[in-house]
Amino acid sequence: MAGIFQRSLRLRTALRHLSPQSPLSWTVTGRHTPLDLHCPFLPSTSWQFAVCSRKLHTGADRPSPAAAPDRLPFSRITQEDLAFFRKILPGRAVTDPDLLESSNVDWLKSVKGSSELLLRPQTTEEVSQILKYCNSRNLAVNPQGGNTGLVGGSVPVYDEIILSTALMNNILTFDSISGILTCQAGCVLENLSLYLEDRDYIMPLDLGAKGSCHIGGNVATNAGGLRLLRYGSLRGTVLGLEVVLADGRVLDCLATLRKDNTGYDLKQLFIGSEGTLGVITSVSILCPRKPTSVNVVFLGCETFEQLLKTFQLSRGMLGEILSAFEFLDSECMRLLNTHLKLRNPISDCPFYVVIETSGSDSTHDGEKLHHFLEEAMTSSLVTDGTVATEDSKIKALWSMRERVTEALTHDGFTYKYDISLPVERIYQLVTDMREHLGDRAKSVVGYGHGMEIST
Amino acid sequence: MAGIFQRSLRLRTALRHLSPQSPLSWTVTGRHTPLDLHCPFLPSTSWQFAVCSRKLHTGADRPSPAAAPDRLPFSRITQEDLAFFRKILPGRAVTDPDLLESSNVDWLKSVKGSSELLLRPQTTEEVSQILKYCNSRNLAVNPQGGNTGLVGGSVPVYDEIILSTALMNNILTFDSISGILTCQAGCVLENLSLYLEDRDYIMPLDLGAKGSCHIGGNVATNAGGLRLLRYGSLRGTVLGLEVVLADGRVLDCLATLRKDNTGYDLKQLFIGSEGTLGVITSVSILCPRKPTSVNVVFLGCETFEQLLKTFQLSRGMLGEILSAFEFLDSECMRLLNTHLKLRNPISDCPFYVVIETSGSDSTHDGEKLHHFLEEAMTSSLVTDGTVATEDSKIKALWSMRERVTEALTHDGFTYKYDISLPVERIYQLVTDMREHLGDRAKSVVGYGHGMEIST
Repeated sequence: MAGIFQRSLRLRTALRHLSPQSPLSWTVTGRHTPLDLHCPFLPSTSWQFAVCSRKLHTGADRPSPAAAPDRLPFSRITQEDLAFFRKILPGRAVTDPDLLESSNVDWLKSVKGSSELLLRPQTTEEVSQILKYCNSRNLAVNPQGGNTGLVGGSVPVYDEIILSTALMNNILTFDSISGILTCQAGCVLENLSLYLEDRDYIMPLDLGAKGSCHIGGNVATNAGGLRLLRYGSLRGTVLGLEVVLADGRVLDCLATLRKDNTGYDLKQLFIGSEGTLGVITSVSILCPRKPTSVNVVFLGCETFEQLLKTFQLSRGMLGEILSAFEFLDSECMRLLNTHLKLRNPISDCPFYVVIETSGSDSTHDGEKLHHFLEEAMTSSLVTDGTVATEDSKIKALWSMRERVTEALTHDGFTYKYDISLPVERIYQLVTDMREHLGDRAKSVVGYGHGMEIST
Repeated sequence: MAGIFQRSLRLRTALRHLSPQSPLSWTVTGRHTPLDLHCPFLPSTSWQFAVCSRKLHTGADRPSPAAAPDRLPFSRITQEDLAFFRKILPGRAVTDPDLLESSNVDWLKSVKGSSELLLRPQTTEEVSQILKYCNSRNLAVNPQGGNTGLVGGSVPVYDEIILSTALMNNILTFDSISGILTCQAGCVLENLSLYLEDRDYIMPLDLGAKGSCHIGGNVATNAGGLRLLRYGSLRGTVLGLEVVLADGRVLDCLATLRKDNTGYDLKQLFIGSEGTLGVITSVSILCPRKPTSVNVVFLGCETFEQLLKTFQLSRGMLGEILSAFEFLDSECMRLLNTHLKLRNPISDCPFYVVIETSGSDSTHDGEKLHHFLEEAMTSSLVTDGTVATEDSKIKALWSMRERVTEALTHDGFTYKYDISLPVERIYQLVTDMREHLGDRAKSVVGYGHGMEIST
């Protein structure tokens, strides 16, 4: 996931590197934000800040010429086209405007397309038929997973056909010895998690959007998420992909080997390519064992510097059991209180930290955590805190971090950016933005993970 | 690293996928082994078996037509070419046959090329000049790192110019907060490890060949090594690469971000491409913190089934501190005894296991290890064992695994294969091969890591 502005940055970078003579028949849905940003930041996904605006972006039905690329000379859908799609996808070629509405608008409600056709294939073969046909007819296609992206990349810009993976939701195989799961791209992340938990495994990634996002979309956007610190990126855990190219050809890179050196690792090109190179139809992924002991602590810090020191301390003292380190600022807490009625579990502080440990021995983990907290309190790095070991309390503490994005949507039109900066200067961006925007923004908040300085 | 046979498999797979209209001016040094193998195995790198032959492969100066591809119509080196190289690399364009000898022969002494020119650039710019010139003159190039590969891929087949990274051995930057190291491709792995250890970090990979192998070669061959179980593959830990393409253009993908979603991840194509797409000149890599507590145990098992059960038990009971699980068979032990005078530290067993733990708390790690060993002994999975916590004893136990390849070279001409099979059938290959080859082989051994069934 990346910022609206960043998406175009990303794509520009990609184009600069590759200059592809692309055979693709779908449009790239990059958009520019009209926000006047003069920060020399590097795009990445390690940290997020968001601006809730009173009315900077209208969310109008049609993006302004400045905010979207021109419509390329794709064909318009004809009755013959519709007849073709209805034939190959009986009952699954949707044209009802009411049903199309939710697929045309992104989760943040910041951008809206005007697609008149939503296709819901169930198989790779159907995706292949669709793309082969669209390619031959020069019809634009917008692949869509759970439509939980925060950068406007999951919805059409104009009248692209929406190709949804929602009905491609079968788990194909799971090997309980190796922990390798193979499934269709439209499986909802949380469903996969629940399936695995019954089998004593977990997914190597976790996101706030887990209840809706699709694994195919996670891979296509190279989602990092809350477990990256411990289990690494999808580039290591995704073992194989099946992808349908724009002309309908099926590329089978669906290996299930922990390490496969047989030729170039082509699947890597599709991880993070955001649907510009092909539609991911199946994924095989290496899943870690479910940890037997999980603890979550919620801490408060007086300054961002203390927060960074707390992170360094946690890396040293929690070591191999540190599985997440996330933070939010007091403005996030205010929005959680105001819009979602979530109560601050500790006393008011400028900064809050969520730390999770995952290990194989609850006594050892408890001891490590105790020593860490003692040290953090003694050295005045943290001013208040609470610990959870039960599932329900763990979930409650996690929701303080996971629901920040949701709270933002209730506050106004949201511009969300994932960025990376030298860590000691990272929060400066939020304070600078507050000053820069002044009254024009309702709120400017900072939150995210400590992964960029983790090992 | 892969088997001689596998190398051609790999390349065939790559070519089938890509059918590249390659602008490359170097040859691909795939070779076929004359060994009559009818095993339906899948190529991978998770496990190794080796055959020491009396005289199946002659190691002759010129490979037989059956064992190597035809020489492609590349130019021959002229005096003008030599003059050019001597001008841009004063004193570093080697033509002395005695000095060339060691670069023409691989470490296993199984294959030999007949290059008459060894170039030793020091900078990316020099590599660029070399390749640009060779490309324009249609001169074949063989990139070479530490020449420690076991598959014949690091030496010329015919008269290719050898482009060595040996003098590109500068560490460029190290960030002690993030653990990100950036260095030239010719840095020797062990030198990087020593540099990092002083700074409380370690390299995320470790190999038996660490004393000679180059980080650039490790990346080019996507080496797995002994720490893969814990720190994952180079696809996750390599953050950036600088690569010189065949025509001399420099591709700068030298990012130092933990996660970089700005465009397609082109560097992934070069990881494991074995010098067929370009020459890696610099690497940035994410290094883990040095663990404060390391233990190594050396165990003996009666059957391969018990060995597998021991692995499963170690995953459950050692969990997050399990950093390596390696095995060797009694035939490996015999060769270690015979050729290297290494003494078996425990009583004779059909199978041996090396387990390493790395953690942040020696008391906790010791307790976990104690409980694991108690359980493994009580349930008769292991019959004997010894534990090391001191550096010197740890090194001694590790050498039982790391020096197997060295012992093999003293036993005869070695064919080495890295393969992957369903784990319960994996050792069957060794016994089948012993039967199949009979007297034709001096020894057939099995050894390797448990990574393919790890999480």
